[in-house]
Amino acid sequence: MDKMSGEVKPESLSLCPLGTAAAPEPELLCIFGTGDLGRSLGLRLLQAGYRVVYGSRRPHSCGPLPQGAQVMSHVAAAQSAPLVLMCIQRDHYDFLETLAPQLKGKVLVDVSNNIKKNMYPEANAEYLQRLIPAAQVVKAFNTLSAWALQNGPSDANRQVFLCGDSKEAKQAVADVATKLGFTVLDRGALSVARELEDFPLQLFPEWRLPLRVAVGLTAFFFFYVVLRDVIYAYVVQGKDISFRIMVSLANKVFPIVSLIMLALCYLPGVVAAFLQLYRGTKYKRFPNWLDRWMLCRKQLGLLALGFAFLHVMYTLIIPIRYYVRYRIADITISDIRENRTREFDSTTAWRTDSYYSVGILGFATYLLLGITSLPSVSNALSWREFNFIQSKLGYLTLLLCTLHTYLYGWSRFLSPSSYKWYTPSAYQLSLVLPSLVLVLKLLLLLPWVDRSLTRIRQGWERRTDPEEASTGLLLT
Amino acid sequence: MDKMSGEVKPESLSLCPLGTAAAPEPELLCIFGTGDLGRSLGLRLLQAGYRVVYGSRRPHSCGPLPQGAQVMSHVAAAQSAPLVLMCIQRDHYDFLETLAPQLKGKVLVDVSNNIKKNMYPEANAEYLQRLIPAAQVVKAFNTLSAWALQNGPSDANRQVFLCGDSKEAKQAVADVATKLGFTVLDRGALSVARELEDFPLQLFPEWRLPLRVAVGLTAFFFFYVVLRDVIYAYVVQGKDISFRIMVSLANKVFPIVSLIMLALCYLPGVVAAFLQLYRGTKYKRFPNWLDRWMLCRKQLGLLALGFAFLHVMYTLIIPIRYYVRYRIADITISDIRENRTREFDSTTAWRTDSYYSVGILGFATYLLLGITSLPSVSNALSWREFNFIQSKLGYLTLLLCTLHTYLYGWSRFLSPSSYKWYTPSAYQLSLVLPSLVLVLKLLLLLPWVDRSLTRIRQGWERRTDPEEASTGLLLT
Amino acid sequence: MDKMSGEVKPESLSLCPLGTAAAPEPELLCIFGTGDLGRSLGLRLLQAGYRVVYGSRRPHSCGPLPQGAQVMSHVAAAQSAPLVLMCIQRDHYDFLETLAPQLKGKVLVDVSNNIKKNMYPEANAEYLQRLIPAAQVVKAFNTLSAWALQNGPSDANRQVFLCGDSKEAKQAVADVATKLGFTVLDRGALSVARELEDFPLQLFPEWRLPLRVAVGLTAFFFFYVVLRDVIYAYVVQGKDISFRIMVSLANKVFPIVSLIMLALCYLPGVVAAFLQLYRGTKYKRFPNWLDRWMLCRKQLGLLALGFAFLHVMYTLIIPIRYYVRYRIADITISDIRENRTREFDSTTAWRTDSYYSVGILGFATYLLLGITSLPSVSNALSWREFNFIQSKLGYLTLLLCTLHTYLYGWSRFLSPSSYKWYTPSAYQLSLVLPSLVLVLKLLLLLPWVDRSLTRIRQGWERRTDPEEASTGLLLT
Repeated sequence: MDKMSGEVKPESLSLCPLGTAAAPEPELLCIFGTGDLGRSLGLRLLQAGYRVVYGSRRPHSCGPLPQGAQVMSHVAAAQSAPLVLMCIQRDHYDFLETLAPQLKGKVLVDVSNNIKKNMYPEANAEYLQRLIPAAQVVKAFNTLSAWALQNGPSDANRQVFLCGDSKEAKQAVADVATKLGFTVLDRGALSVARELEDFPLQLFPEWRLPLRVAVGLTAFFFFYVVLRDVIYAYVVQGKDISFRIMVSLANKVFPIVSLIMLALCYLPGVVAAFLQLYRGTKYKRFPNWLDRWMLCRKQLGLLALGFAFLHVMYTLIIPIRYYVRYRIADITISDIRENRTREFDSTTAWRTDSYYSVGILGFATYLLLGITSLPSVSNALSWREFNFIQSKLGYLTLLLCTLHTYLYGWSRFLSPSSYKWYTPSAYQLSLVLPSLVLVLKLLLLLPWVDRSLTRIRQGWERRTDPEEASTGLLLT
Repeated sequence: MDKMSGEVKPESLSLCPLGTAAAPEPELLCIFGTGDLGRSLGLRLLQAGYRVVYGSRRPHSCGPLPQGAQVMSHVAAAQSAPLVLMCIQRDHYDFLETLAPQLKGKVLVDVSNNIKKNMYPEANAEYLQRLIPAAQVVKAFNTLSAWALQNGPSDANRQVFLCGDSKEAKQAVADVATKLGFTVLDRGALSVARELEDFPLQLFPEWRLPLRVAVGLTAFFFFYVVLRDVIYAYVVQGKDISFRIMVSLANKVFPIVSLIMLALCYLPGVVAAFLQLYRGTKYKRFPNWLDRWMLCRKQLGLLALGFAFLHVMYTLIIPIRYYVRYRIADITISDIRENRTREFDSTTAWRTDSYYSVGILGFATYLLLGITSLPSVSNALSWREFNFIQSKLGYLTLLLCTLHTYLYGWSRFLSPSSYKWYTPSAYQLSLVLPSLVLVLKLLLLLPWVDRSLTRIRQGWERRTDPEEASTGLLLT
Repeated sequence: MDKMSGEVKPESLSLCPLGTAAAPEPELLCIFGTGDLGRSLGLRLLQAGYRVVYGSRRPHSCGPLPQGAQVMSHVAAAQSAPLVLMCIQRDHYDFLETLAPQLKGKVLVDVSNNIKKNMYPEANAEYLQRLIPAAQVVKAFNTLSAWALQNGPSDANRQVFLCGDSKEAKQAVADVATKLGFTVLDRGALSVARELEDFPLQLFPEWRLPLRVAVGLTAFFFFYVVLRDVIYAYVVQGKDISFRIMVSLANKVFPIVSLIMLALCYLPGVVAAFLQLYRGTKYKRFPNWLDRWMLCRKQLGLLALGFAFLHVMYTLIIPIRYYVRYRIADITISDIRENRTREFDSTTAWRTDSYYSVGILGFATYLLLGITSLPSVSNALSWREFNFIQSKLGYLTLLLCTLHTYLYGWSRFLSPSSYKWYTPSAYQLSLVLPSLVLVLKLLLLLPWVDRSLTRIRQGWERRTDPEEASTGLLLT
């Protein structure tokens, strides 16, 4: 009883200075800048029940502003409200220095974005903090689209990231964001501002390398199969089978790229393990290329899944293709006309059915990997479960897909007719990397190798050279 | 050292009145109402370690209550605890007015729901606040199912939404919810209560319009193809091909509805752009129908994806259908009996393979659009990325699917035999809207149109009539 | 103005003792333990801008530590910082008792994990709290992988769960976690520690029973169809059709297991409803087996969906199988050679097309069920919507899939030739459970049964025996 009633006493209010509970009239917020962003944001704040005062260089001629808002000089506006939203561009920040006395102790919300990365040596918010050290700068709202700022939260615009050095200032901004309908994610100190400012500029940065790999592999294998199939047939047999490009050749390229990218997804982990074994410690940083490679494994895997999906779809439409129907009818008709009889070959039935079966199971585990990499699913997993799926299930997928490809090849590996122009088939090339990864992984599973690796990962170090060890990464 | 120990001093406790850290015995909560909800909630609170006291009109004859709970008169119960959970129906709130002195300064948790929307002029929680202005009302728990309130969090019942005007009161309720195992989402001021009270009553409100469109289009095109195919064949050729309804006709209707709905998903954006160009400003609100249309684009797109999925499945089972196998065998047999020879047509092979290939790629980008609209995926994207996918990839999907349909039609557009009863084929009808959207989008991409639109979206206004501009939306 | 500036006054700081706003130099954290975990965590904290002091038994010979960190005796280290991270194993906790005076009032962060469940009678964190009652123990970070602790957040390692009895202590730890880039989830009181400590050890606990059911059913039906198909053909007809195992038989087993598991997913709900009807109350706890069954319905359903997916894939590759192509060609050729003419059977066309159509629609609703059970999707649904989908759509799926199977059987139910060795076909066995569930559900939908059940679920009790009722579950 006493506990609860305590909070409405006036003296306790001054201790929680940002509480809005007992406020008799709506809170007053200040906006610097009467441009598009300032006007839109002000309108939104008024709709959410705030009072808004604009700070302007020319308070009497600053164009139309939302009804209900006041306009004042920067000095007067700054003094009237505890929280100032900076809707001005960084280029114009310098004049704020003259307002330092009025802005002392205020919460300054930096909502600015830049047009491209690394335009300035420091983040906009950090620059603002440096200009007015006595204020508490919070970076916020900049990750939202202009549309969301004007119209409220929508699908990809529900979260407001903020950062700042003052917890109370962040709480004040979080309250405003919550009242506008957003959910707030505190990202930490003001030094994170650079990251938040880069966020709206990014366009799938972690997908670039994997996409380039995918495009490169697709292009290479496409030309390779066009050469070996279409051009070879034209040159050697004089036949034009260029129509096969659209489906048949695409369906050769997609599974190959998928398999290679799946192998590329698991190769860095194997390489890292061997590197740790060789070095005898986990306290040395991996080379940069390996670090970068490991960071895009998820993207490699998801692209590989995309190619696998295309392979599945292209395979499933095979029987409705005009070419296939023509060929099947043609064979049946010529069998009859030439009175030929084909024997049912049980081995072929076994082989092809196994080939399909293994492929389907591989695709199913592939899909499972993709589903568990959805953020909401992986968040619900414990680390051990995530690891189990991404590692155990991942290698199972690689094994099944590699086996699928070997079953496809079968005896053709030995047949000389499949080595046109002395080149191996594309699917044979695709088997190199996955087989390598599987063999290396198998080596790592040998009991004594596994034991050494586990010890190293638990922090044990092999000190062949104590001099080197003590100057290891940890101390530099 | 001193900083941390400071918080256990008694005087600091009164400053953080809700802290439970040093509490020697479990916190006492009060429940008003001994009905089903009150009993279940009380049992749950007792299990979570709280002490519970019930307020009842007839403390001595209120039926079985959870063991360990006390029962008192409303007055005594209200005085004993700082937080009161209101498990009574809104109709009975009026008697609470007499308890105003005892409830002064208390946190009142309104958990009530209504049977239908707009039953009362104000939200239940706001009514409660009006009855007892000196209390701090928090709306909470009402979005949970009764099952979750009785048994704790489950899949769709992990989040507790709450709102209220007092931050301290909300924190107190959030602590209770956290202790019961829920995650809390603060939705803002008490004025949001209406929204929270409507939430449990809603049944896919944003899906209604898109679903009606889907059902309407499906019905129309179903009757259209039944008329042109089955009834035409029966009337003109005297053949009963009604068995085709189950798969063949369904597989005509599904892709058509999918394509039209995909176009409907992108049409409002194009219309809005032209409206902004025409008006020369973005500060005028769109007409209501356009606003409503734009708000259900996601649902239109997802339904379109559903129909596309059905189309894919119905297409893939074509070769295992009895009818198809019979027809193929029939053609082969009659070819042989009549000694007919069919030439392989390379153009047909190109056309059909392109048709399949474009369709598969369209379906793949379609799926990608669907995956990125999953909440957890879109939350992980920056606004620029989300926009890139939903816009660029969206138009690519529309382009691929439209092309797929044109390739299906091919030369049949000119053949008079396909205009049965002087009506166009259904797929021809389905091409109107997507083609229109693509042409309009193309116009918007023209350099000078694009430039004007960008300027307008950055806040620039064309003031042909200053009078009108100054009385624009922003100021009303 | 006054509100905001108030917070930088020195006296207000002592009231929010953990605020870092005005701190001129980085915060100092203490780590007990210089093993792998302590070193990695210290390095990470230093990188995040903290100062770190290690407490060690042998401060002068504790091996390499991250540069910038200090090492002291436990006593000196404990006194220097308000927050101590315990990177020592539970076995060594006992020596901490001697440090009780120095640790008084400190925040102790227990990051420990055990190797297996139930190793100790109480949670590690609770043991620590018991050893040093005057400290404030917070369980945190233990659900992260070692990799995440060393390298920062990654996919499945973004959330830090924490629990503890002191709100201020939890806030202090949450601040550290936020600064390291994690998102924090407060799970409540220290009594939850056991749960947090068990979390990293769990490996899909709720999937075990459903997985066992799936494996059991698969094994049983696999042997059943091998017996009835392959062995029967070998024994009775002397034919070796063992090649059919890979695809044909697999494609018999998968849909059967899927259908039975879908029925098992909805059976417990029906059983529970009848139990409530029989008992006339909802206040009696269900028997344990029913509770356990109901808790794994989601997993049963998702596994069923997995099997349905395999069934779909195995069905779609039918026409590209060697065996199928051989058979079709064989039939066509023998038709010609023996001059046989087959009539097109419209009824068969209707039946098979309906069979495919119903199957596809069933799979589509199945998928929809799966998608809505993704955490991020189900979180966005109101309880009414979730219930609508999982119940209405669930029964629709069961109905469609059961109908699909009946259409598959069709007239074969009556044909004696399908009862080889007097055993029913596998698909006939699979129909028992779904049919039962559908019939029971139908009974529950009868108006007066539905009315009784609704009343019971609203809290009404049938008191045939008042003695028993008053001693019911609620009061024990």
